[in-house]
Amino acid sequence: MPRSSSKRVTLEEVARVAGVSRATASRVVNGVTTVDETIRAAVRRAIEDTGYVPNPAARALVTRRADAVALVLPEESRLLGDPFFGQVVRGVMTVLGPSGVHLVLMTMDANTRDQVLGDLRRGRLDGVVLIHTDRADPLPRLLIEERHPVVVSSRPVVPLPVTYVDVDQPAGGALAARHLASLRRNRIVTIAGPQHTTAGQDRLIGFRDALGDPDLPWVEGDFTRESGAVGMAQLLRAHPGLDAVFAASDLMAQGALAVLRESGRSVPADVAVVGFDDSSAALACDPPLTTVRQPVEDMAAEMARLLLRQVDDPDTPVTASVFPPTLVHRGSA
Amino acid sequence: MPRSSSKRVTLEEVARVAGVSRATASRVVNGVTTVDETIRAAVRRAIEDTGYVPNPAARALVTRRADAVALVLPEESRLLGDPFFGQVVRGVMTVLGPSGVHLVLMTMDANTRDQVLGDLRRGRLDGVVLIHTDRADPLPRLLIEERHPVVVSSRPVVPLPVTYVDVDQPAGGALAARHLASLRRNRIVTIAGPQHTTAGQDRLIGFRDALGDPDLPWVEGDFTRESGAVGMAQLLRAHPGLDAVFAASDLMAQGALAVLRESGRSVPADVAVVGFDDSSAALACDPPLTTVRQPVEDMAAEMARLLLRQVDDPDTPVTASVFPPTLVHRGSA
Repeated sequence: MPRSSSKRVTLEEVARVAGVSRATASRVVNGVTTVDETIRAAVRRAIEDTGYVPNPAARALVTRRADAVALVLPEESRLLGDPFFGQVVRGVMTVLGPSGVHLVLMTMDANTRDQVLGDLRRGRLDGVVLIHTDRADPLPRLLIEERHPVVVSSRPVVPLPVTYVDVDQPAGGALAARHLASLRRNRIVTIAGPQHTTAGQDRLIGFRDALGDPDLPWVEGDFTRESGAVGMAQLLRAHPGLDAVFAASDLMAQGALAVLRESGRSVPADVAVVGFDDSSAALACDPPLTTVRQPVEDMAAEMARLLLRQVDDPDTPVTASVFPPTLVHRGSA
Repeated sequence: MPRSSSKRVTLEEVARVAGVSRATASRVVNGVTTVDETIRAAVRRAIEDTGYVPNPAARALVTRRADAVALVLPEESRLLGDPFFGQVVRGVMTVLGPSGVHLVLMTMDANTRDQVLGDLRRGRLDGVVLIHTDRADPLPRLLIEERHPVVVSSRPVVPLPVTYVDVDQPAGGALAARHLASLRRNRIVTIAGPQHTTAGQDRLIGFRDALGDPDLPWVEGDFTRESGAVGMAQLLRAHPGLDAVFAASDLMAQGALAVLRESGRSVPADVAVVGFDDSSAALACDPPLTTVRQPVEDMAAEMARLLLRQVDDPDTPVTASVFPPTLVHRGSA
């Protein structure tokens, strides 16, 4: 059926075959549920018999739905190299795929904000899942002000009336602390995540509080492998006798492991290492990484579900969905 | 500007402000280029002054363009854990992002074929970039028969009149072979990629031909870390004296390195290892992986460009765009 020669079946033909009016056929095609079921069945049969394909542009004029939502990721350079990203996409897809709603992928750059808002205003998108926006990003506030459906991936730094999904970050930090304490390590340090994010802040707070050590040595990384290596080198210079490290991401732990190896320290005998995420990077580490698991795929699926609920009903109340973390034991601690 | 209370500026108002007819304003909004430039400028000014936002559904009825293309990835379980995936997405985005065309992400499952074809027929998508389809997949043929814009990521196993982008796979295999030969290794084995893909076939052929060894020991993997570990264990049992391995993907090389380490062999002293891809997994390896680099991001950007060209002009001739591979020297060989 080459497009150039295919003749489009019209709604009129469907109505004629079904023996109903064009208006009735139109209501059935557009999913109006008040039509009598026997009439709906007749129209559905006529659609099958004629091979009628509803014109989505015409349909969108009626329903005002794009059946497309955006997944907006932070500046591309970081996350696209992070296995975390694949898990988020997979989780969102498990929900959107069966619904036929398009997943439109975007990364945050100078133009993304205008594009997302423009697409939502023009009805090219029905809503947005936003991953890891930082405190300086005005997008969540703009989306809320214009009453667009939106779900964000972590508790906002500045309180906002927005639906979010998160792991219990302080509890995750506490799991790492209690594990290292149980190994009788007592010269413990940490490579924290970025302190302009709640994940970075809360993992550090949870870890420090569970250790009960307000003077815990720490440096700040940005969740990347490189920042983990730089942070580990700093900590080794300042505290050569350290015997345990909690890195607030698996990639930072991976960078830290390389520096510990170069410095001649054995893991876990000399230094125990715990990461955070349980991404595929944890398995690629040598030794395999003991880490705090956040159920990223389940969390991403929940984000998609909460978003579709808002799209269906704009008056859905704002909610927070917080998942418990778990500790995954492997070779590094 | 809450959506519920915002009043939509109509095309009539734009026409009135510009001092032209509604039909002329409509032609300008829809990008008809035969309108006089001074009139076009007046309409553009009126659009800015009034804050007019074209209704995309109405516009799509005229232009028949969705301004959305799909990136279809193979069965999700594999690629979403593979850093390769992030590079593909990034490359496609560098081209689509500035154009405002939506990147709709899909993974291949039982329903994807019908969804993609349905979306293309209904005008919800303008075209498709298909990654790694295997020989049994009828989708490329169906897309060509229905004359939808499509670009595939590697030379099809069964010849098809389809535009594709690929790395010179045999040349990549040959680069690996010549490097291992230059290290005076002579008990060389390889973990090949899946033999139902041209990448799997051609990397093996290029490697074997360059070594000039028709009896080269090889096993078949599926590009995953797990299959690299299984393949390496098989090869060690059959050829305990081996001194070099070419793994046809970085992830398979990573799996092979873990098995070599467990078997007490040192890399590269006892066994030299070369991978393929130069993905971020290559840097995560211990030692860092010597590997054949394919410029995935550039190749993905080229796929997007070739697709948009077809969307603009359905009569664009079928082309093949083949990129040269390079050898990246690191610690493993």
